[in-house]
Amino acid sequence: MALARISRNWRRSPGTGAINHNRPNKETPFYNTPDPTSNSKTAGKILYTQSLTNVDHMNFDGKGTQAIQGYRFAHAERVTNFPDSKTDSNSGYASLEATKPGDKPRVVVLGTGWAACRFLKGLDTTIYDVVCISPRNHMVFTPLLASTCVGTLEFRSVAEPVGRVQSALASDPNSYFYLATCTNIDTEKHEVYCETVSENGQPYEPHRFKVAYDKLVIASGSEPLTFGIKGVKEHAYFLREVSQAQQIRKKLLLNLMLSETPGVSEEEKERMLHCVVIGGGPTGVEFSGELSDFIVRDVCQRYAHVKNYVRVTLIEANEILSSFDVGLRQYAKKHLSKYGVRLVRGVVKEVHPKKLILSDGSVVPYGLLVWSTGVGPSDFVKSMDLPKSPGGRIGIDEWLRVPSVEDVFALGDCAGFLEQTGKQVLPALAQVAEREGKFLVELFNKRIGKQNAGKACSAKDIDLGDPFVYKHLGSMASVGRYKALVDLTQSQGPTGVSMAGFTSWIIWRSAYLTRVLSWRNRFYVAINWATTLVFGRDNTRIG
Amino acid sequence: MALARISRNWRRSPGTGAINHNRPNKETPFYNTPDPTSNSKTAGKILYTQSLTNVDHMNFDGKGTQAIQGYRFAHAERVTNFPDSKTDSNSGYASLEATKPGDKPRVVVLGTGWAACRFLKGLDTTIYDVVCISPRNHMVFTPLLASTCVGTLEFRSVAEPVGRVQSALASDPNSYFYLATCTNIDTEKHEVYCETVSENGQPYEPHRFKVAYDKLVIASGSEPLTFGIKGVKEHAYFLREVSQAQQIRKKLLLNLMLSETPGVSEEEKERMLHCVVIGGGPTGVEFSGELSDFIVRDVCQRYAHVKNYVRVTLIEANEILSSFDVGLRQYAKKHLSKYGVRLVRGVVKEVHPKKLILSDGSVVPYGLLVWSTGVGPSDFVKSMDLPKSPGGRIGIDEWLRVPSVEDVFALGDCAGFLEQTGKQVLPALAQVAEREGKFLVELFNKRIGKQNAGKACSAKDIDLGDPFVYKHLGSMASVGRYKALVDLTQSQGPTGVSMAGFTSWIIWRSAYLTRVLSWRNRFYVAINWATTLVFGRDNTRIG
Repeated sequence: MALARISRNWRRSPGTGAINHNRPNKETPFYNTPDPTSNSKTAGKILYTQSLTNVDHMNFDGKGTQAIQGYRFAHAERVTNFPDSKTDSNSGYASLEATKPGDKPRVVVLGTGWAACRFLKGLDTTIYDVVCISPRNHMVFTPLLASTCVGTLEFRSVAEPVGRVQSALASDPNSYFYLATCTNIDTEKHEVYCETVSENGQPYEPHRFKVAYDKLVIASGSEPLTFGIKGVKEHAYFLREVSQAQQIRKKLLLNLMLSETPGVSEEEKERMLHCVVIGGGPTGVEFSGELSDFIVRDVCQRYAHVKNYVRVTLIEANEILSSFDVGLRQYAKKHLSKYGVRLVRGVVKEVHPKKLILSDGSVVPYGLLVWSTGVGPSDFVKSMDLPKSPGGRIGIDEWLRVPSVEDVFALGDCAGFLEQTGKQVLPALAQVAEREGKFLVELFNKRIGKQNAGKACSAKDIDLGDPFVYKHLGSMASVGRYKALVDLTQSQGPTGVSMAGFTSWIIWRSAYLTRVLSWRNRFYVAINWATTLVFGRDNTRIG
Repeated sequence: MALARISRNWRRSPGTGAINHNRPNKETPFYNTPDPTSNSKTAGKILYTQSLTNVDHMNFDGKGTQAIQGYRFAHAERVTNFPDSKTDSNSGYASLEATKPGDKPRVVVLGTGWAACRFLKGLDTTIYDVVCISPRNHMVFTPLLASTCVGTLEFRSVAEPVGRVQSALASDPNSYFYLATCTNIDTEKHEVYCETVSENGQPYEPHRFKVAYDKLVIASGSEPLTFGIKGVKEHAYFLREVSQAQQIRKKLLLNLMLSETPGVSEEEKERMLHCVVIGGGPTGVEFSGELSDFIVRDVCQRYAHVKNYVRVTLIEANEILSSFDVGLRQYAKKHLSKYGVRLVRGVVKEVHPKKLILSDGSVVPYGLLVWSTGVGPSDFVKSMDLPKSPGGRIGIDEWLRVPSVEDVFALGDCAGFLEQTGKQVLPALAQVAEREGKFLVELFNKRIGKQNAGKACSAKDIDLGDPFVYKHLGSMASVGRYKALVDLTQSQGPTGVSMAGFTSWIIWRSAYLTRVLSWRNRFYVAINWATTLVFGRDNTRIG
């Protein structure tokens, strides 16, 4: 069915606002003799176009202008021009041009986090074409990320490919996912400017392009706060991406193994196996809990030679879990301490490769340092010439619109209510982002879409219905050893429940299991949990 | 039970040939005030030894000698010396010293491949202590590695941590796993010299140490053959480690996504999505088959915009699957061609970043290049002053002993029968390596162990029983689309069965499922296969 629709729509006439995907010839040749005078087919081999060896056509690595303008083809009959994918001679950017009258309006979404994916998932693709631009092709199920560092869960169980969230991105002829970062936005021209990502940090000249939008949804997220402390970016691990969880795991296992080596001193062993977590928010606490679980259950069996050297320290400047009910906080502290997590009040002054210095002068040697002290506006958000909320996020009104510019919406961690709305900036939580995504997609489907206001500059005076109101449902955090906290006091007021222990842990697991987006990952998370119970955590160190 | 045994054995008196793992003080302090005159406890904080800030004790990053000799402790009462882990002043190597009379004999195993792991798995640890030294902490189930590149299987389903293969390595007080590479062997002194591995290719001064052995088992494997062709090591991917499969997967998904970007030319798309496999052995064929499966089933759905550009070419200098029955070879060729794999006869002359040149001068542009042209002796094997077999492997006799030196055995890909044995060097197959591992471990358990000949230089005139005889059971290879080849003609002679098709594919899967070492991985491989059937392959690109 879907494939039939694609093939019907595949060959679009030029000038319809999308790249033409007609292939010039299904039998396009692959091989080429280096002799430029010969272009006949030789026995059993197909020839590549002559241009291949003579013309530098690798526009992927060069600036778009040069490459496309310098294009020459030996076999002119095989050439397709790009009527919709022109290079702008002013900017040097290849482009996905503005939609034409009669086309579906194009929604461009920046990001693949909670807000973006909730929006993408719900978008009615019979009304809109959608383009998603993000440097990663998947959503991370962040509340379970800490579990992957120690092998309780597999990495791919907490990652949801964006094509599974919104299948139109993979299959609809005018919807795309671009693996790229957005560098700039021209709200006047209704265009975003992008660069493709580099490969594993290899030297690379990015390919630049621009995408025209009818509506723009900015959900590009935030960046970890380092408070300008020296050495944090160089030596500490953050815990926001799956690749970072992989690095933490590799480092942890490396230290466990290297500390067994003959000739490593007692002090050095203690240093290598000292895991320090900075920040006592839910991420820091859950990671500490998982680590202590890992030590109690797995390290004792699998690294018996060094088990007595492993230590976890959680350093927090104020209270741990400050957003939770005071009783739960006490429970968490007691529980973590009982299972060997040292809780330290302190402020980090400097971070060195193997030790950190607190503001009172004490020195903390470490083997693994995980930094989770909250998030703030990204450089991209800071650089944008848009109204800002208190705290420097993109300022939005109650319908998540960015006032003063047309057709731009912002949500999730990168957005906050403007002061004039009289509303508080909401915390940077998955819960908030998801609720905003849900609100906005309904606005798009039911209000903007139904009133035919999807095209650029056509939604000025339409009825948007009720504004967005956030109601906090509650907070949860696991603390390790089959125990968790569930806090519903904020949402239900003084009558609300707050509880801690095994029942909460069951609620915590069940709640997250049902929140995981796809059935595949729901299945894998359940299987991972079951095998961890039966076989213990996996301690393969890959790479 | 196991833990009780460990704790009983944990505190060994000095001089028993192992590192002493007593911890000086369970409450060893962690924090230190930078003022060297102060060493009193401050409120709520524990102090670290003073030496921490003043003395460079990080012997892990420095030469062992310097670090250990330069050791000073502020709190002498907390210091434990390393009676068994001395630094040899002559060599600068920390060491695990020779076993003493009364100790169990120590077997040192180099490697964690098929041969090493089969040996480790079977070793009777009531007779021997075992030390395994390898740069990776897991065995790779190589026949299923190709499936992980396209997401049919998860990476960790084909990796078996060595601690799960032989639990003594993780828990026995005098058995160890060292994450290190062996650099040299002194067969006279009965010592191996090692260096710890670096972290993700970061600049790093390795920690050096030596390990004394009673018996040495060299199973360090082979290296991919590149025939000295320029550019292979720089630009091609090999397919022997899980991390290499991860890189191939990342590159493939990156190319699929980047080729959708606006402004990428037709030629460039074709280049980026051209997957070239060099070498038509089982690995090359299975990888090509998996790739064509991935394209037929998953790319069409998930990368519909570029599906017509994806191509697979398999280049082989001679026959594909030359070790298989001629009928099966024909079947494989037909099948691969039918599902879009181009089979090309050719010899690679040069490899450039985006194209390769064949010896007839034709140019093949590629986006992904996988090199699987067989294996040859590693630099480590070449460098060793040991007898060599035809082809440059370590020469062994019919009991897998290296003649001319005492107590050294070699098996797997790194070893081959000496010419004087009158036996042919066996092919570098998992099957051969596993069978050799099985033979050797029985020799160790039932012959050497039972005759109390485990200690160094004590096995000269003992009865070793029957020599090793290899009987080939048969060959299998999958070719994609639920089809495989099973060739039993070599083992059973002219009456042997050779078959191809769906039944063979069922045999292929069942056979490998039962060969996977642990129940955990057996379970995961089955689950992965089932979810791939139901949900399709996962296309998350992490990192």
